[in-house]
Amino acid sequence: MASVDLNSDMGEGFGPWKMGDDAAMLDIVTSANVACGWHAGDPIIMHRTAEIAKAKGVSIGAHPGFGDLWGFGRRVIRGDSMADLEKQVAYQIGAMQACAALAGHKVTHVKAHGALGNMINDDEDMALAIGRAIKAIDPGLVYIVMPGLPTERVAERLGLPMAREVFADRTYDDSGNLTSRKTDGAVIHDAALAAERVLRMVEDQQVITVTGKVLKVKIDTICVHGDNPAAVAMARGVRDRLEAAGIAVKPFKAA
Amino acid sequence: MASVDLNSDMGEGFGPWKMGDDAAMLDIVTSANVACGWHAGDPIIMHRTAEIAKAKGVSIGAHPGFGDLWGFGRRVIRGDSMADLEKQVAYQIGAMQACAALAGHKVTHVKAHGALGNMINDDEDMALAIGRAIKAIDPGLVYIVMPGLPTERVAERLGLPMAREVFADRTYDDSGNLTSRKTDGAVIHDAALAAERVLRMVEDQQVITVTGKVLKVKIDTICVHGDNPAAVAMARGVRDRLEAAGIAVKPFKAA
Amino acid sequence: MASVDLNSDMGEGFGPWKMGDDAAMLDIVTSANVACGWHAGDPIIMHRTAEIAKAKGVSIGAHPGFGDLWGFGRRVIRGDSMADLEKQVAYQIGAMQACAALAGHKVTHVKAHGALGNMINDDEDMALAIGRAIKAIDPGLVYIVMPGLPTERVAERLGLPMAREVFADRTYDDSGNLTSRKTDGAVIHDAALAAERVLRMVEDQQVITVTGKVLKVKIDTICVHGDNPAAVAMARGVRDRLEAAGIAVKPFKAA
Amino acid sequence: MASVDLNSDMGEGFGPWKMGDDAAMLDIVTSANVACGWHAGDPIIMHRTAEIAKAKGVSIGAHPGFGDLWGFGRRVIRGDSMADLEKQVAYQIGAMQACAALAGHKVTHVKAHGALGNMINDDEDMALAIGRAIKAIDPGLVYIVMPGLPTERVAERLGLPMAREVFADRTYDDSGNLTSRKTDGAVIHDAALAAERVLRMVEDQQVITVTGKVLKVKIDTICVHGDNPAAVAMARGVRDRLEAAGIAVKPFKAA
Repeated sequence: MASVDLNSDMGEGFGPWKMGDDAAMLDIVTSANVACGWHAGDPIIMHRTAEIAKAKGVSIGAHPGFGDLWGFGRRVIRGDSMADLEKQVAYQIGAMQACAALAGHKVTHVKAHGALGNMINDDEDMALAIGRAIKAIDPGLVYIVMPGLPTERVAERLGLPMAREVFADRTYDDSGNLTSRKTDGAVIHDAALAAERVLRMVEDQQVITVTGKVLKVKIDTICVHGDNPAAVAMARGVRDRLEAAGIAVKPFKAA
Repeated sequence: MASVDLNSDMGEGFGPWKMGDDAAMLDIVTSANVACGWHAGDPIIMHRTAEIAKAKGVSIGAHPGFGDLWGFGRRVIRGDSMADLEKQVAYQIGAMQACAALAGHKVTHVKAHGALGNMINDDEDMALAIGRAIKAIDPGLVYIVMPGLPTERVAERLGLPMAREVFADRTYDDSGNLTSRKTDGAVIHDAALAAERVLRMVEDQQVITVTGKVLKVKIDTICVHGDNPAAVAMARGVRDRLEAAGIAVKPFKAA
Repeated sequence: MASVDLNSDMGEGFGPWKMGDDAAMLDIVTSANVACGWHAGDPIIMHRTAEIAKAKGVSIGAHPGFGDLWGFGRRVIRGDSMADLEKQVAYQIGAMQACAALAGHKVTHVKAHGALGNMINDDEDMALAIGRAIKAIDPGLVYIVMPGLPTERVAERLGLPMAREVFADRTYDDSGNLTSRKTDGAVIHDAALAAERVLRMVEDQQVITVTGKVLKVKIDTICVHGDNPAAVAMARGVRDRLEAAGIAVKPFKAA
Repeated sequence: MASVDLNSDMGEGFGPWKMGDDAAMLDIVTSANVACGWHAGDPIIMHRTAEIAKAKGVSIGAHPGFGDLWGFGRRVIRGDSMADLEKQVAYQIGAMQACAALAGHKVTHVKAHGALGNMINDDEDMALAIGRAIKAIDPGLVYIVMPGLPTERVAERLGLPMAREVFADRTYDDSGNLTSRKTDGAVIHDAALAAERVLRMVEDQQVITVTGKVLKVKIDTICVHGDNPAAVAMARGVRDRLEAAGIAVKPFKAA
C-alpha cells in the first residue's frame, strides 16, 4: 500500500506565550517539527512536545531557525558565514536531541524554519551547511528537502537520508519552488481543494506548477499547518482524504 | 603515580565579545568547562573551544547556567520548578554535545555555572535536577561535584560517575562549602600559596577548613581560573607545583 | 462625586505572540500599564497600545520588569545593586515615553511588574531605586504604590505624585500586603464578590484583612486583569458596580 | 575660526563584556554615539558613558541598531516594515534619553549603527523611518547624515537639524558613499595619512573620491574609532592635526 507522512511545525510557543493547537495537530500528523528555542520554543515546550508526540506515535524532528525570537525566524538575516550557520544549526539539533531524550523520545529528522528554510531553497551553499550539521551529529537523521531544489541535491551528495516534501496549501512555480506568498492564489485556503491536490500529488508523484507544467517528483511527506482552526481543519481534511483513498499516513521514519 | 585533573571555565565570550585567555588556559588545564550559550558562549565559540581542546588533548564538559546573558549567570533566579531546571540543563548539554561533535570532540562531563553552581551546593533538589538531566542524556557523563555536599550525594544516588572538585583559590567552611566571597580572605590571591595548598589537598586527600577542621575527601579535579593574567599565572603555578611533586596532571576522563 | 481609577497590565505580547484581550480591557479601564520590552512587549506593541489608549482616553504608564522574557518577569532575580536596578527601570520608562510620543500619547505613571513589583512591597531600598528612576526622568510621573507599604513611604519621601492601589481579586494580610497566592482563598474568582469588595474598599477607603483587621487607606486606583474572558468579565463587573453606586471611574491623571 | 566635531561609537560592551577604550576616546572626541542595548550596551553602560561624557563636556547621542546582540547589529536583517523600524529606533532613543537623564546629561543627536547605518545610505525609505522616529521624539535632535546621500535629503525634508559626517579612515566612491570594506584600500590604516586627509576634507569642505572626483560637501563631524590601540592613536592624531591647523574641535551641538 502506498503511504505518505504528514508533517507540521510545533512547539512554537515561548515562555508564557502559546501558539497553535499542538494537541489537535498531534492527532493528525505523523511527524512534528519542533522549534528549538532560537526563533520559538524553549526546553519546557520542546520536552513537552516530545513527550506527547512519543505517546501518540508521532516522530519528531529538530526545526532550527535564525536566532530571532522577536521576528519568529521569519526575517532574512545575512552576514553569517556558511561555517557559522552550520554551527548554529548543530547547536539547535543537539538541544532538541537532549530534550527528546529527557522525554524518552528520539529525533528522527531536521527541517529548517522560516527565512532559513526559504533561503536554502535558493542557495545551495546554505543547504549544504545545514546538511553538514546534520551529518556531523548523526548521519541517520533525515533531512527534509524540496524535490528538485538545492536541499535534495545536497542530501544526495552527502549521502543523507531525506524526506521529499510538498506543501498542502501552496502552489508551485516551474522551478519546483513555492510561488511567492505575495502573488495572488499562492496560498490555498479551500480545504477540500487542498486535500484533492495533495491526493493527486501523492498518487501521481508529481507536482503541477502554476503554468501547468508537470514535475515528476518523489513525495515522502506533506506539510500542513496548525496555526488556526481553519488550518487544523485543512490538515484533518488532507489526512482523511488520503486515508479514504487507501493511502497509509505514517511517519517516513519511526523513532 | 597519583594524578589529578585541572579544570577551568572557558568559551565565555559571546558574539563579538571576548573573555579570558582560553588559548593560554588550554595549555594548562586538562578539562575545560564550556559555556553553552545561556549565560555566555555561542555555537561558534563552543565549536572553536572544542576544536582547540581536541587538538591539545583537553577533555571538555558542558557548563550550563541560568539563561541570563546579561548577568553572566551570576544572578540568583528563583521561580523554576525542579522539573523545568532539569530541561534547561538538558538543553544546554545537548547543544554542547552537538557543537563538540561538529569539532570531532566529545563531551565528558558537566559542571554547573555561577549562581546555579552555588545553589546546588545548598539545595539537594536542585542538585538532583541537574543529575537527572545528565543521566537522561548519557549516564556515562561525569558530574563535577563538591565532596561532602548535595552534588556528591546525588551523583552517588543516581549512580553517575563523578569528579570531586576543590578550588585552588578559595577557602572552605566546616561544611565543606566555600566561604562567602564577602568574608575576608575567602579568595586566595597569592599564587605560591595557592599552589602549596593545592598540593597539600591532593597529597593528603583532605581539605583544611578556616577553623582548622580536617575534612577527609577524595579529590579528582582542581578548579583554576583564566579571567586575567594573574589567574593564568596562578593556574600555571598550580600545575607546575603538582608536577614537580610527581603528581600527574591529566583528565579525570579522556574523551 | 467620588471617583476612582481602574488599571490593568497590557501590551504583554511579544513579537508574534499575543496575550490577553487588550481591546476589551481598553474599554473598561482608565489607566493601562504597558510592558516595556523586558519581560514582555516590544516597540510595535507598545506603540499600538499607546495609540489605542489615546483614542479611548485611557492613560498609559510604563510597566517595567526584570529583563526576563522567558520567565515573563515573574522569576525573582537577585544580584543587581540598587543603583543598577534604578538604571534598568529608567531605561524602560524612557523607551515607553518614546513609543508613546510616536503615538501622540504621553506616559503618566509607572507601575512595577511581577517579581519586581512584589519585591518592592517588601524592600524599601528597591522601592526607592524605582522611585529615584521615576523622579530623575520626570518628577511629574505618578508612582503606583500600595498603601502602608514601602512604595508609599518612598513616594512621600521623594515628593513624587502617587496613586494608591488595591487589587480587585486579592485578599490582604494585616501588614497591608497581599496574601500569598499559595494560601487558600488568596485569589477571588467570584466576579460579583470582587465587585462588592471593591465598592466597599472605595466607599469606605479601607481594606479589611483576612483576620478582620481594618486598615484605613486612601485608594486611587483598582487593579484588574484581562488575561482570560473571566478576568475581563470581572473587570467589567467591577466598573459597572462602581458606576451603579455613583462613583466616577476615571484616570487618576489624564495624559 | 573654523570648527568641526569628532564623533565615535561608545558604550559597546554588554553585561560582563567590555569593548573598546571608551575612557581614552572620551578625551579625544566631542560627540559620543552610545549603543542603546539592542546590538550592544545596557542601562548600566549607557548611564556610565553618559556620566563620563557629561564630566568631560562630550555630547552624547543615541546609537540605535538592529536587535541583534549576537551579530552586534552588523548582520543585515530584512522583513520589518518602515513603520516598525521607526518604532524600534524610537524605543532606543527614548531609552538613551532616560539613561542620560539619570546621569544629568542630555541626548543631542542620533546616529544609526552597523547594518542599519549602512542600509539607510542606500534606502531613502529607511532613512526616512529613522528621521521620523527622531522628529516624533524631539525635533531638536540632530540626525547624523552622510552628505549627498538619502539621510541628508531626509533631514532636509523633515526640517531636522543635521550633522554631516565624513569618516577618517575610509575612502569614498563617486556617489559619496563609502567604498566597500572588501575592496583594496577601502580602509585607511596609516594614522598620519588619515589625519592629513581629514584636514583636507575639513579645510576644503570637499571629499575626493577614489576616481579623483571632487564632491563639494559641508562637513560637521568626523567619525573616528576606538576599537583598538591603533584606532585610538589615529583618533588622537586626527584631533591633533586639526588643532595644529587652527581648527577648533568641539561638539556640533552642546548638551
